[in-house]
Amino acid sequence: MESRNNIYALVVAGGSGTRMGSKIPKQFLSLNGREMIEWSVHKFDSNSRVDRVIVLVPEQWIAHTDSLFYDRSEVLVTAGGETRNDTVINGLKLIDERYGIDDDTVVLVHDAARPLVTADLIDRTIDSMKENDAATVAMASTDSIAISENGKTIDSCPDRDTIFMIQTPQAFKAKLFRKLYRSKSQESRAKLTESTRLFAENGYKVGIIEGESRNMKVTHPGDIQILEMIYRNSGGKRK
Amino acid sequence: MESRNNIYALVVAGGSGTRMGSKIPKQFLSLNGREMIEWSVHKFDSNSRVDRVIVLVPEQWIAHTDSLFYDRSEVLVTAGGETRNDTVINGLKLIDERYGIDDDTVVLVHDAARPLVTADLIDRTIDSMKENDAATVAMASTDSIAISENGKTIDSCPDRDTIFMIQTPQAFKAKLFRKLYRSKSQESRAKLTESTRLFAENGYKVGIIEGESRNMKVTHPGDIQILEMIYRNSGGKRK
Repeated sequence: MESRNNIYALVVAGGSGTRMGSKIPKQFLSLNGREMIEWSVHKFDSNSRVDRVIVLVPEQWIAHTDSLFYDRSEVLVTAGGETRNDTVINGLKLIDERYGIDDDTVVLVHDAARPLVTADLIDRTIDSMKENDAATVAMASTDSIAISENGKTIDSCPDRDTIFMIQTPQAFKAKLFRKLYRSKSQESRAKLTESTRLFAENGYKVGIIEGESRNMKVTHPGDIQILEMIYRNSGGKRK
Repeated sequence: MESRNNIYALVVAGGSGTRMGSKIPKQFLSLNGREMIEWSVHKFDSNSRVDRVIVLVPEQWIAHTDSLFYDRSEVLVTAGGETRNDTVINGLKLIDERYGIDDDTVVLVHDAARPLVTADLIDRTIDSMKENDAATVAMASTDSIAISENGKTIDSCPDRDTIFMIQTPQAFKAKLFRKLYRSKSQESRAKLTESTRLFAENGYKVGIIEGESRNMKVTHPGDIQILEMIYRNSGGKRK
């Protein structure tokens, strides 16, 4: 991490909306002896093209997260925001304050709950920024989908082979994201459940990078066991 | 199953497109001591409103499937077709030959690979046919989705809260389905990866019945273990 590539990774681990309560947020649960967030951060931290990794966690988890990365000067920890993109904005703010953001600054955004992301997938995401202003990893859907405004009856059904399930990493130009996001109303911001839609809606080309099953997001109780199986069967850390 | 309700269930276990090869198709794999397809068929077979259950399997699996249901006169086994809806058509043909299909005949279609469907979900699907010509079980999506024609760049992103992942059971009027399906070109038939889209595209109201996580489809290697866990933690057969 000596040279400056102007590429930063945001590892997103739940905005402040994540309630701690009695339960530990999933990104802090153990997977093969390390907290899930450690695996996710490590994947970006060990990529020589990534300058810094910003880890965004709920306010009350900052101290704990700091302790996980206490000896890694290239890993910064800060608080997430209310929504996914508010969290991204908080990450950009920190980058801007510390290192400055210019027209070419690229950020990668990754869900901490996708700990089995591969080095290859991160490389392909970075590479795709040569041709695009934004890009996202996504998987072709194996399920049929219906669109319904009222949730009661079907409005339309897109062809299954045109449907892509959005994963992470995503990559985009930081300055452009901030400009586009600022121009949006509160209402249209609320509809952005990820970051690349903002670019697509404004006419920018958003590249699709073919995802991998092992990059699945931990959502359901059984998912951690599945990831542990995948991890063990695939050569583990070397990927 | 004495009275005639004019409701039939098609349990769809892979068309002839399923290659046997060295691997056993998933619907014949064991789940809690019974083949997955047995659980799926039982759920419909034990519903007093369902007249007959038609099980559609690849040609080379008919003998085996017959042996599973040898003592159940209300369960019929026949060959599936090339595509999902060709399989449905084969089921309707059998119903028509044996019992006749009229304007009110309702068919339920269910994936054999969703063995943890509940009696309640089947009941709600049947009930929804009071108000609709077609209906499908579906789950609100937790993932963001992109639409892309070329698979390389994003065309658009529907609002996440309007996206529903289609499950089964589905229900619809048999005669109407046959009529609509026959009117379609080979090309537009190929785009129908499930059955209710045909109704939606022709302006018919298609009801959405809220799905259940336990009704997940077995797709990946680890899914059977997950289903076994869910089964054991939820009172098993009594559901």
